[in-house]
Amino acid sequence: MRKPIRLLILGTGHMGSGIGRLALQKSGLDLVGGFARRPDRDGMDLGTAIGLDNEIGLPVHTDLNAAIAATCPHVAVQATCSSLADAKEEIAALIRNGIHVVSIAEEMAFPACVSEEEADEIDRLAIENNVSVLGTGINPGFVLDTLIITLTAVCAEVTAITATRVNDLSPYGKTVLMSQGVGLMPDAFRQAVQDGTVVGHVGFPQSIHMIARALGWQIDRIEETREPVIASVRCETDVIAIDPGQVAGCRHTAVAYKNDVPVITLIHPQQVCPELEGVGTGDSIEITGVPDICLTGSPEIAGGEGTVAIAVNSIPSVLNARPGLHTMADLPVPSAKLADMRTFVRTSAREAGDE
Amino acid sequence: MRKPIRLLILGTGHMGSGIGRLALQKSGLDLVGGFARRPDRDGMDLGTAIGLDNEIGLPVHTDLNAAIAATCPHVAVQATCSSLADAKEEIAALIRNGIHVVSIAEEMAFPACVSEEEADEIDRLAIENNVSVLGTGINPGFVLDTLIITLTAVCAEVTAITATRVNDLSPYGKTVLMSQGVGLMPDAFRQAVQDGTVVGHVGFPQSIHMIARALGWQIDRIEETREPVIASVRCETDVIAIDPGQVAGCRHTAVAYKNDVPVITLIHPQQVCPELEGVGTGDSIEITGVPDICLTGSPEIAGGEGTVAIAVNSIPSVLNARPGLHTMADLPVPSAKLADMRTFVRTSAREAGDE
Repeated sequence: MRKPIRLLILGTGHMGSGIGRLALQKSGLDLVGGFARRPDRDGMDLGTAIGLDNEIGLPVHTDLNAAIAATCPHVAVQATCSSLADAKEEIAALIRNGIHVVSIAEEMAFPACVSEEEADEIDRLAIENNVSVLGTGINPGFVLDTLIITLTAVCAEVTAITATRVNDLSPYGKTVLMSQGVGLMPDAFRQAVQDGTVVGHVGFPQSIHMIARALGWQIDRIEETREPVIASVRCETDVIAIDPGQVAGCRHTAVAYKNDVPVITLIHPQQVCPELEGVGTGDSIEITGVPDICLTGSPEIAGGEGTVAIAVNSIPSVLNARPGLHTMADLPVPSAKLADMRTFVRTSAREAGDE
Repeated sequence: MRKPIRLLILGTGHMGSGIGRLALQKSGLDLVGGFARRPDRDGMDLGTAIGLDNEIGLPVHTDLNAAIAATCPHVAVQATCSSLADAKEEIAALIRNGIHVVSIAEEMAFPACVSEEEADEIDRLAIENNVSVLGTGINPGFVLDTLIITLTAVCAEVTAITATRVNDLSPYGKTVLMSQGVGLMPDAFRQAVQDGTVVGHVGFPQSIHMIARALGWQIDRIEETREPVIASVRCETDVIAIDPGQVAGCRHTAVAYKNDVPVITLIHPQQVCPELEGVGTGDSIEITGVPDICLTGSPEIAGGEGTVAIAVNSIPSVLNARPGLHTMADLPVPSAKLADMRTFVRTSAREAGDE
């Protein structure tokens, strides 16, 4: 049997750590190294860095080129950032070293909607270096795009798509809560939205453009709104306490228009302690068409676990893909990969380990 | 712009007619001909045969080779039968003429589970003739396989999958109702199951093997049961009347075992007038894993409309695919195709019309 797939993880935060821990459980996949941006992680044992009880005898690198040189990976999963601008330098370094890339940076789910030029550049560079690059994650990457696209496959006509994902911010840390404006007073929230310090969800344009391209729709414009969810009861999480009148979360919505008609509406309210306000979390997809489709699930598909899983499950698809930049909608139907990871890689795949 | 994709339909029954009518609405797709097995359709206008008010000036052929010679199609949709044995001769004839094939024959969704040898033969023949072959449909092909596989993409672990599709047989004709044992007395139903005249749903082994292959599971065995749904109230449809005590439908289930543990349970009760018995129709998928996933929708995704749509929507994917026999899970994420069908075909696709 050929040698295991060698995996480098970029990022040892919540997501990078989860990806590293899952990789260690997968046969046929070797976690060969880790890179972190935080200088204080330099030289730390990778096992410790990703939250294992035991050391695994591999150091965390804070210099990406050194990490690559030391580990010779086939594929890297990037879990260091959200934006294309922030992600692209690491991605380019990986590509130039002949390494396939799975990125969970939200904007990498469909980077062309931030910058067509930079997306083309990544695509060209990947083709030149004979590797594949994919952006994925639970959202963008799955619930509000890939899953919706898949459901439209049984539709002869689609006139409108409305999807809602309601989730609970309580498990998240300070950085995420601040990006959603949690704890602010409503006026400060509105100011922070204008300043760009409260961003809400990152990924609506990516999801919308993925859907539109799959269906063949031309989108005129996307209108996003970010409204405060105001607490009516006191709520405490591990990192914050909210009193009535303060902002408990951000109700972020995006509406995409085609010929001035709203055709895609994505609604993603995120707040702490939704259950105290009588708000049930969940996912809901409603397609108006021929036939109509409506699917719902409660609670929502777990975001953290889902992102970790889809990043690791995507590795064989990326190894199998033709060189270049891909979205989830370009690749074969995704799935859990529950056997030796090598069995999912076509033997002709370019950089699979030798026999 | 290149010339339209030329489509031949095989079958002018309920499904073939729907596919033909949808094809006529699609720009970039030319319905160039129709074939029917029924001798009495020979020479009938294809528009009339597929239920249009107007003639379209194309004759229905009852000789497949004559249909091919007269119409020179790029792709054919086969809607003439359910079994591999019944489908393969037409498919082979199409392939030998360099025509891509989308089949809605249930066993074509994963033909290897009926006969690995015959599936290999179709694959080999398709490769030799540089065309692609796909089996699809609402079920098998989508609800109880492709959609489930897609949902597992966000799972790190899956221990069990249970999916239920409850639908209403009332709109169907005599052939379908007889295959489900509708109108029989319970003892006669049980005898007919043993005789093989009541078959229930065709497609469980196909769906199970699609899921298992995507996940990397080895299935030991599949146990299918067909139980009568016994009417407690009188029910009338266009073609049959059922009294209390008679069979209103077939509760068909399949359980797949891995290492003697049940891992996939598919439940598909079909009956006439379910609403009179207080039975709600719908689709439900429950995945026990990390994370758990549960999605439900009611009513069920419409079977007839869904099959027609997914057959037509699959045409560009089949034109784009590498030569050979494919399942839905091998091809890119499926979607509705709502623009000119040619825009979804890669310019490098082999037999796309010339400029």
